[in-house]
Amino acid sequence: MTEHPSPSMSIIVQKYGGSSLATADRIRNAARRISATRQRGAHVIVVVSAMGDTTDELLDLARQVSDDPPAREMDLLLSTGETVSAALMAMALGSLGLHSVALTGGQAGIRTDTIYSRARITDVNPQRLRQELDGGAIPIVTGFQGVTDTDDVTTLGRGGSDTSAVALAAAVKAERCEIYTDVEGIYTADPRMVPEARRLGQVSYEEMLELAQLGARVMHPRAVELGELYDMPILVASSFVDAPGTLITRAEHVEVRKNVRGLAHDTDVGKITVTRVPDRPGVAHSIFAPLASAGISVDTIVQNAGLDSHTDISFTVTRGDVARALPLVQSCAHEMEAGGVSSSENLAKVSIVGTGMQSAPGFAARMFGCLSDSGINIEMITTSDIRITCIIERDRVKEALGVLHRAFELDRDA
Amino acid sequence: MTEHPSPSMSIIVQKYGGSSLATADRIRNAARRISATRQRGAHVIVVVSAMGDTTDELLDLARQVSDDPPAREMDLLLSTGETVSAALMAMALGSLGLHSVALTGGQAGIRTDTIYSRARITDVNPQRLRQELDGGAIPIVTGFQGVTDTDDVTTLGRGGSDTSAVALAAAVKAERCEIYTDVEGIYTADPRMVPEARRLGQVSYEEMLELAQLGARVMHPRAVELGELYDMPILVASSFVDAPGTLITRAEHVEVRKNVRGLAHDTDVGKITVTRVPDRPGVAHSIFAPLASAGISVDTIVQNAGLDSHTDISFTVTRGDVARALPLVQSCAHEMEAGGVSSSENLAKVSIVGTGMQSAPGFAARMFGCLSDSGINIEMITTSDIRITCIIERDRVKEALGVLHRAFELDRDA
Repeated sequence: MTEHPSPSMSIIVQKYGGSSLATADRIRNAARRISATRQRGAHVIVVVSAMGDTTDELLDLARQVSDDPPAREMDLLLSTGETVSAALMAMALGSLGLHSVALTGGQAGIRTDTIYSRARITDVNPQRLRQELDGGAIPIVTGFQGVTDTDDVTTLGRGGSDTSAVALAAAVKAERCEIYTDVEGIYTADPRMVPEARRLGQVSYEEMLELAQLGARVMHPRAVELGELYDMPILVASSFVDAPGTLITRAEHVEVRKNVRGLAHDTDVGKITVTRVPDRPGVAHSIFAPLASAGISVDTIVQNAGLDSHTDISFTVTRGDVARALPLVQSCAHEMEAGGVSSSENLAKVSIVGTGMQSAPGFAARMFGCLSDSGINIEMITTSDIRITCIIERDRVKEALGVLHRAFELDRDA
Repeated sequence: MTEHPSPSMSIIVQKYGGSSLATADRIRNAARRISATRQRGAHVIVVVSAMGDTTDELLDLARQVSDDPPAREMDLLLSTGETVSAALMAMALGSLGLHSVALTGGQAGIRTDTIYSRARITDVNPQRLRQELDGGAIPIVTGFQGVTDTDDVTTLGRGGSDTSAVALAAAVKAERCEIYTDVEGIYTADPRMVPEARRLGQVSYEEMLELAQLGARVMHPRAVELGELYDMPILVASSFVDAPGTLITRAEHVEVRKNVRGLAHDTDVGKITVTRVPDRPGVAHSIFAPLASAGISVDTIVQNAGLDSHTDISFTVTRGDVARALPLVQSCAHEMEAGGVSSSENLAKVSIVGTGMQSAPGFAARMFGCLSDSGINIEMITTSDIRITCIIERDRVKEALGVLHRAFELDRDA
């Protein structure tokens, strides 16, 4: 017998990604998990992505009718993917004897700005959600979408469904937001690269942000930022196995027994270096302004001032952008009479991340020493409060991750 | 160059059915037709059904997750089919250089009651449509759906998209509602049965209603009724060829040179007869009440009062319902001590339809004579003001249609 939840019960928001909903079987599987949560005595609000490849199929249809589909219509088109998932999930819960109601982003009160294809949430009005919860229903909300003030459908861009889930959790003052996906949580390093990588029980928002921005594709940074803003604990866990997952929470809730929490890496790195740049005001701007105009995103920038009023400037872009960026940089280097331009497309970033690092010295030295001992050359270095990143040759990444994982004892239970 | 339509221009509503939108090619084809209408200087509002088999695919998904999907969630699920069509059509028009905006039923102001899966339209607020037309856009509205007062998505059931189109046409005071489909219009008889059948240039709403209810699947009766209610001319035409189609309009606009306008037939007819029923009050109710409770729809009923205070009662149901109906009728016949129960599943209806028939005698006699001359036995007869229907053996239908078509000179241009 299903207990009828009372209004005072705590609320859990559960988000299921596309791979967790790819087939009718998987939807039924997720429905059983939702049912179990409900039977433990919590209100549940579910947020769903589009099933498996649905979004790609819709994009393909759009390309068949238009070379340049208008963003508004594209958003309306793509939003149907999540609506299908939500309706099917509500049906699956219904066949488990649970009263459930599928709601579009608009029906669930998610308002956004009018920037189609990458809208930002401006407001969440939880009135309908509360009404459904009070009536004993499990609301199933379409992720990734909202409506403008004129009720036009928008999509939230990359990481949209995670963002929907965290925003709804904040609006209804949920106890926790649970993100169900195809990985078992956040690891000390990518298990495909470091076999002894270990799942972390907890990480801080800051650590998760650094890990997410550095290639750990588990969660989009913007959803993590929103979680931090509203102090909403986020559990990342697998929808396929029953395992505890990783809880993302405030730093003071994270037990920091070890100062480096995890490693991140990114193998999609290209580097461009301009040598012997005249060291005068405005040179950096002359190099980077044309790249920005061309829509090329520049990542790490390092400038080494020389002794003879010249300087070398190096910066990284994604590997795919090197070929587009080179002629722009060469033309600029020629104008400013720089020494020359060189590039490499075979680089990668390796990072150590940990909230505790900011209060303790010596991490950088240990990292550099480790790589040096293994004969791995460091091309560039960048740091943040809780991260140190080295740019190295791409074919040494796996080796570098291995030695760093051991050196910082990440394989040992903290 | 596309002319910018002025607010005073007339409005044409065009509805495209699922087969007219089954592929990207067909969507582009329909878009060219819409563009041509616009270039002739009219405002256009487009209503679309779901692409080809989309609805069946969604139904199949629903069945995979639930044996008994809740109607509200089913409606939300099915509504995505039309949304996909609308977004794609807006994109296709965009790539022809036309500004277009896809609108869901709710966005287009279609309000309904809360009877999910067969909702009735309660109100159409054309404010958004007028605003888009004033801005020079072509609104593309999802057919078959609306929203309740609480913004929940409903579907309109069978014939829903045609109904949407006619309701929108009435709300914006359109000049005409055009229904594009896979047939070239309304015929004097089904061309697959009567090769010399001729397309009718015009028919009245009443004639169309009789033809639609008798198996001419071109348009659902409820959309025709709505057209009659609002005196909205409806053109039925093919989206695949450029041909004039059939205009459905008020009787006085229809030139009635010939009194029979067309033939209809329905081969899905079963008959049940109860013989020697005691002729006393309440016997008809005792037979038909159990059938109604079982959801069996009874069509034609004929009662022949006998001379000895007994009567024979015959009625038709769909062939598929005969087996379900028989035991109910037998039990009832036994209770009332009737003579017996017989049934047949091999019957069909053949009808002559025409507005002019009500004011002229002799049509029934000619029809019966015709069938009799061909040795076709008439099992039952029913009539309305503008229709005479004979129930005959199913394997004589084609022959009956042929002789009637010739007898009433339907092959000759009126």
